[in-house]
Amino acid sequence: CSGALLLMTSNQLMASPSLSGGLWFNYRYVNDGGDASVERDQDTMGDIADEALIFYVDDVAENRPWSLSAELRVGPGSFTDPSSNSSGDNVALHKAWINYKIDEQNQLYLGKSQVPFGWKTVNFWPGDMLQGGYGDQMDVGIKYKASRQNLTYNLAYYHADDWGESSTDSLDDNGHWGSASGYRKIQTLVADASYQLNSNHKLGASFQTGKLQDLSEPNLASDQNPAPVDGKHNALALYYIATFNPLYVKTQWIKVNRELPDNYRLVNNLATDIENDRAAIEIGYKHNNWFAYINANWAKTNTNGNSA
Amino acid sequence: CSGALLLMTSNQLMASPSLSGGLWFNYRYVNDGGDASVERDQDTMGDIADEALIFYVDDVAENRPWSLSAELRVGPGSFTDPSSNSSGDNVALHKAWINYKIDEQNQLYLGKSQVPFGWKTVNFWPGDMLQGGYGDQMDVGIKYKASRQNLTYNLAYYHADDWGESSTDSLDDNGHWGSASGYRKIQTLVADASYQLNSNHKLGASFQTGKLQDLSEPNLASDQNPAPVDGKHNALALYYIATFNPLYVKTQWIKVNRELPDNYRLVNNLATDIENDRAAIEIGYKHNNWFAYINANWAKTNTNGNSA
Amino acid sequence: CSGALLLMTSNQLMASPSLSGGLWFNYRYVNDGGDASVERDQDTMGDIADEALIFYVDDVAENRPWSLSAELRVGPGSFTDPSSNSSGDNVALHKAWINYKIDEQNQLYLGKSQVPFGWKTVNFWPGDMLQGGYGDQMDVGIKYKASRQNLTYNLAYYHADDWGESSTDSLDDNGHWGSASGYRKIQTLVADASYQLNSNHKLGASFQTGKLQDLSEPNLASDQNPAPVDGKHNALALYYIATFNPLYVKTQWIKVNRELPDNYRLVNNLATDIENDRAAIEIGYKHNNWFAYINANWAKTNTNGNSA
Repeated sequence: CSGALLLMTSNQLMASPSLSGGLWFNYRYVNDGGDASVERDQDTMGDIADEALIFYVDDVAENRPWSLSAELRVGPGSFTDPSSNSSGDNVALHKAWINYKIDEQNQLYLGKSQVPFGWKTVNFWPGDMLQGGYGDQMDVGIKYKASRQNLTYNLAYYHADDWGESSTDSLDDNGHWGSASGYRKIQTLVADASYQLNSNHKLGASFQTGKLQDLSEPNLASDQNPAPVDGKHNALALYYIATFNPLYVKTQWIKVNRELPDNYRLVNNLATDIENDRAAIEIGYKHNNWFAYINANWAKTNTNGNSA
Repeated sequence: CSGALLLMTSNQLMASPSLSGGLWFNYRYVNDGGDASVERDQDTMGDIADEALIFYVDDVAENRPWSLSAELRVGPGSFTDPSSNSSGDNVALHKAWINYKIDEQNQLYLGKSQVPFGWKTVNFWPGDMLQGGYGDQMDVGIKYKASRQNLTYNLAYYHADDWGESSTDSLDDNGHWGSASGYRKIQTLVADASYQLNSNHKLGASFQTGKLQDLSEPNLASDQNPAPVDGKHNALALYYIATFNPLYVKTQWIKVNRELPDNYRLVNNLATDIENDRAAIEIGYKHNNWFAYINANWAKTNTNGNSA
Repeated sequence: CSGALLLMTSNQLMASPSLSGGLWFNYRYVNDGGDASVERDQDTMGDIADEALIFYVDDVAENRPWSLSAELRVGPGSFTDPSSNSSGDNVALHKAWINYKIDEQNQLYLGKSQVPFGWKTVNFWPGDMLQGGYGDQMDVGIKYKASRQNLTYNLAYYHADDWGESSTDSLDDNGHWGSASGYRKIQTLVADASYQLNSNHKLGASFQTGKLQDLSEPNLASDQNPAPVDGKHNALALYYIATFNPLYVKTQWIKVNRELPDNYRLVNNLATDIENDRAAIEIGYKHNNWFAYINANWAKTNTNGNSA
């Protein structure tokens, strides 16, 4: 019952950052295909649901290199999955990083940050649903971002998909990266580079490669780890962004490959290797406080029973 | 696996509004009528409970017609009912609306707002308990508020009592509007008008009429909707407010009528029609930062077994 | 169905205080002693967990004697115990008090505040773990704080360890004050006095004495209260603080004695009286935005099977 410890911390990390809030809710009408007398929302005319209050913490100061940014969602409209997240509830941190600005051209991000892979879909359901979880990934790890004249690049290591030992919930990824009873993305290296040709045109490429940990019900010999890390994932994205104010066009081609963990694959009767190609285009219009966009996505599967 | 979608949104809705917080807790002593040796709070001398932290989001700006207001309660003192609300937990949005100011005289409210019916009781338990859920109703829908010289009026459509498909929890209504296993108030039209006779006297009238959806355990033929919308509710309020600073007097007479949904009524052995009259008076005193009030309520039931 | 009530409240209590936020998370590697093939974190290389978002409410104004301070933690890293707290979830109020400043020398605190006993450990796990729950106690009650020249003293009555009837969770006390199925600290009187000898040296003494309520599974005759208040606790602390900027040294000696409640003691086969001594030293360094410290703790138990 004795101990000693040494901690070193910067008070600034605990300084009082600004805090703001947002709000959303949706109208839903469920057409369950029944005839008029039994259809679910025939009499109620639908419902107003998915309400959430969003807290944004942002701590930036002129006189120091550290800053902080976090987004907490509370409520049924958090777009989190309580059965696969780390709170077990409709409460989730969508983002939570500490930033260190080495200089104007070099920055580090520690915590849950945006995976630098292709371009990010508009931050709203269901934009990403159509990109198979590659359009809006928030993972936990460390990211280095640098810019040299017209070139911007990112190098990152994401230790896991989310906080804790079994959460697979990145929120807006619509469950495309496994579940707490399926598998989980871990130990992922990411590289991204984009080149601004001129004020209108930008070209980029991203690559990520990592491991998949099996979280499915184990059926293993007794001397094996119950959650073996025996799967892999790789993805490549090529993208092009054109900007002609107030319009912009974004296009992207993604090639995806996953080697599913053994037990998960056997239990669910899936192929070992899953491959598919995805293409996406988004056309947007921004003017003053208004913003409109249209997007389209295509996926071509090369494997039966793919879940990627 | 292909799709296209069009969304249009105002960035202002997602702008960073101000956020503030409040706090409350209560002292409780439960007298359960036992003798001294077994009475529950005899030895403990009661407890300090019902703690809650309240978040207020308010986003108002001079240069645009939109504003936002929300109140989120977190904690055991949220005065919400986890078994009948949309979060399933002691977390609830008491208020969450977006306001659009057409001009100085005309405004729209979208979301969870105060039902314009009579006057609102002081925002504290147990003021409303005595008005049978008609003194502090926060429902989800759309409200139009207008003022013309001495006349103020409201027209509103409330789609449901609360968020989602089964929540009946308006927070401070003390369960007077059903439960997730009973019935639920939906599709309610509300009209309210009040006239300021002079600086001291104000007269008003409100009317609301809507439907009740059955949420009780169904016992129906197979071709029927399991949650039929087969009940009705109506209520009329006449009110008078007198102000003689620092004193004010509010009086109100409410006539209530409900036709309960069939299955709920049968299972609970209740009359089809429920009618009652309520009267309320509140005398208040406001001076600088202090506020005191006294209120009294009377209800006359015209029906056996009423629950309204 | 009639009623009357009188409430008196200060609007200031509900005024809009400032709100800020903080964030933390930890890296964990669990070494469970297995060999390489089955060790839990061998393949995953640990996880990043215990994330929490912290809300601070602080309402201080120049022109009035009231102020408010609260800290709410949300998330798996709240350091609360859902099975023993009042929310039943990873959401907890670490602090929540209303302060009334009688004058510059005299103040009252109502709500959940810091128990004035010895010096507080650095507000970080695991500093307090080593002081047996005496280094960072946040209890619910009323505290009076006064200063007279070089003397500062506190007198306090803490009604209970936490909110509600069974919560024993003060957050950072690491479960040293019982559990919802064990016992609970209630009705505690606290006195503390410290004397600033000169700008470098300060001496102090604290004493607390209170009762323990039995929350363990009862095994009693039917005419007895199922949660009898039949235990006691006492503690004495002597402390000395030296400050030589940027260094400081804090030392403390604590003598602890507990008479455990009967049923809890019998069920868990513990001695009636528990006694032990504790000593702690902390050396800290503060310079600009950096802070480093080292601390050490020793405990000497005079009783077998002690849990205090």
